[in-house]
Amino acid sequence: MPLLVMKFGGTSVADLSRIKNAAAKVKREVERGYDVIVIVSAMSGKTNELVGWVEQTSPLFDAREYDAVVASGENVTAGLMALTLQEMDVPARSWQGWQVPIHTTSAHSSARFVSIPRDNIDAKFAEGFKVAVVAGFQGLSAEGRITTLGRGGSDTTAVAFAAAFGAERCDIYTDVDGVYTTDPRITEKARKLDRIAFEEMLELASLGAKVLQTRSVELAMRYKVRLRVLSSFEDTDENSGTLVCDEDEIMESRVVSGVAYSRDEAKMTLLKVADRPGVAAAIFGPLAEAGVNVDMIVQNISEEGFTDMTFSCPTNQVLRAEKAINEAKARGAYEFGQLIVDDGVAKISVVGIGMRSHAGVAAQMFAALAAENINIKVITTSEIKISVLIDRKYMELAVQALHDAFQLDKAS
Amino acid sequence: MPLLVMKFGGTSVADLSRIKNAAAKVKREVERGYDVIVIVSAMSGKTNELVGWVEQTSPLFDAREYDAVVASGENVTAGLMALTLQEMDVPARSWQGWQVPIHTTSAHSSARFVSIPRDNIDAKFAEGFKVAVVAGFQGLSAEGRITTLGRGGSDTTAVAFAAAFGAERCDIYTDVDGVYTTDPRITEKARKLDRIAFEEMLELASLGAKVLQTRSVELAMRYKVRLRVLSSFEDTDENSGTLVCDEDEIMESRVVSGVAYSRDEAKMTLLKVADRPGVAAAIFGPLAEAGVNVDMIVQNISEEGFTDMTFSCPTNQVLRAEKAINEAKARGAYEFGQLIVDDGVAKISVVGIGMRSHAGVAAQMFAALAAENINIKVITTSEIKISVLIDRKYMELAVQALHDAFQLDKAS
Repeated sequence: MPLLVMKFGGTSVADLSRIKNAAAKVKREVERGYDVIVIVSAMSGKTNELVGWVEQTSPLFDAREYDAVVASGENVTAGLMALTLQEMDVPARSWQGWQVPIHTTSAHSSARFVSIPRDNIDAKFAEGFKVAVVAGFQGLSAEGRITTLGRGGSDTTAVAFAAAFGAERCDIYTDVDGVYTTDPRITEKARKLDRIAFEEMLELASLGAKVLQTRSVELAMRYKVRLRVLSSFEDTDENSGTLVCDEDEIMESRVVSGVAYSRDEAKMTLLKVADRPGVAAAIFGPLAEAGVNVDMIVQNISEEGFTDMTFSCPTNQVLRAEKAINEAKARGAYEFGQLIVDDGVAKISVVGIGMRSHAGVAAQMFAALAAENINIKVITTSEIKISVLIDRKYMELAVQALHDAFQLDKAS
Repeated sequence: MPLLVMKFGGTSVADLSRIKNAAAKVKREVERGYDVIVIVSAMSGKTNELVGWVEQTSPLFDAREYDAVVASGENVTAGLMALTLQEMDVPARSWQGWQVPIHTTSAHSSARFVSIPRDNIDAKFAEGFKVAVVAGFQGLSAEGRITTLGRGGSDTTAVAFAAAFGAERCDIYTDVDGVYTTDPRITEKARKLDRIAFEEMLELASLGAKVLQTRSVELAMRYKVRLRVLSSFEDTDENSGTLVCDEDEIMESRVVSGVAYSRDEAKMTLLKVADRPGVAAAIFGPLAEAGVNVDMIVQNISEEGFTDMTFSCPTNQVLRAEKAINEAKARGAYEFGQLIVDDGVAKISVVGIGMRSHAGVAAQMFAALAAENINIKVITTSEIKISVLIDRKYMELAVQALHDAFQLDKAS
């Protein structure tokens, strides 16, 4: 029997009528001949309520108890979804993480999968059950405690089950109808993509297209799980949404697939850093320890024996970063002339697997920005992505100009 | 290490500040040198919310899914209680039913205990944990599904753990400060009992003194678990509340311990029932099938070949009972002359282990009622209880008169 994994996030199961709506989508796939594994999140708001109780009770909480409390939200949804399916005459049962069992590491609140044995769920499919409703976001440690996977854990659960059970596809139902060439709020020319390669999706996800959690895309790429993002609030069919898949499945070779942005970036530059082996580690080690999420890093040679080091981080981490840098300087970890902070920048990126084989994409990008008189402050590139920092006030203009320049409004 | 079981009901853990209050009581027992097993209910209101969702989703719900959803309420409290204790520097961890594991039958929503192995929790006590916080009301079936125990399940869990772990005592914290000689709302002379025998508590519990669930008292009696009922909203010490214990532990021999009542009773009499072997079964079988909770049953010989049969049931089951009786008559299950219904009666009972060895208690009771001109309609007696049905309007008067007659306001 072919098998599908279907995942419904918190807003898709926010109340009983939405659970019913989601169940109808599951039933339709059963009628098409699929066995289905449904992964559910907690009803929206419930996880926050539970987290709030834990944090009020114990600011430095025992993560094992945090996990035991917080995981209960998904368990409630799983039971209600199974009941809803039964009401629709679909043979279904719920599975909590420990019942599958979903073996994870013991890193509570950020556990990773160790294994997902198929035996128990397969036995129920063999008995005639058509749907296994699995509580997402959770697992079981070797010590027998409940673990949770951390942010985006339900997406990751869905992909892991799709990999373990050899699912034909993993459908992620959410509150958007797919992945767009850029944010439709910035340009109405934004177009929904029918397909996108894993690598492109990874770059877009980590750049702020909040459709899929990065970790779930990584996992899908590793196990070649075909992921589909689609809306739980629209009528959908087998062609709805955006398929995230191996690039081999994408016939048409686009140069650029999308334009991503990140609004609240800060640029910090250390001028005249005494240049010696290990100085980068000396700078970025203390920043990591201070919990600063350093994104871009650029190093230029300035003059003999000295270098300039520029990096970006979220604006709300600037104070923490400054403190870490000054403390490191004070204890002689490294020396520099001056620290320049610019917390008024935004990051714009163009992403596309096609640029690997197409020269001139960077030049085309820089020309489009120059035509709008937008000054580029920092540039970094990877194989399938070019990112720049610019003044924040030009962000929307830059996205629109690049979307036009690469003709993303036209289906390729 | 001596061990205590402490149980906190829904109102005692209704919010984070009440959980903190309960945890303080646990900490005090740890400081006295006890290892403690804490049994918790769901925060008040939470179980109703979950039950509501299940019933709205599926009126004829799959009880396995019902149990999986509803048991999550206790799991949340268990985690929060463990965290609260940790904040107070008490080494504690939470246990869900399947983690202990609490083995039960597979009768979902009314499961019964099969066994509670001590190994896992004992191992944690040996590691230095002082408190095991166990989610009440739940267990694990042989099929690996979550079960719940039905009404009063958390009290029963507490007693079962006290029996399994050989606890010195099982303290049930609730919103009343003990067991009274009668309802203080009816007479201010009602007095809190320091001790009461299991048998007396059983009679009082099933007669409407809603302090302890009957099943938990039965279990305590069978395993000789000393139960203490006390308030979670007052400062309590080792002498607070009421101890429910074996009668050997009760030095003073009271004749009567308490006066119980049940307001909404109906009396139904079948006149001139054709008397033959099996007629009682023919009458009460259909009533049981119709879900009528028959309480008192009295049979008198009237004339040769005929008898009168009287029974009582809750007033809101009268219509159901009439229907069952008339249907049985119509299909010839038995014959009778007339059915007389009186739905304006109340039941009054005096309870006391002392009456086993004291003649004249019944006569004293009837005399006290006669002195108030209260007519007795039905009488039944057991070894330690005498119950009468009277007109409902005399209920308060009768309770007060009996409380005075047996001098229950005076400590014996």
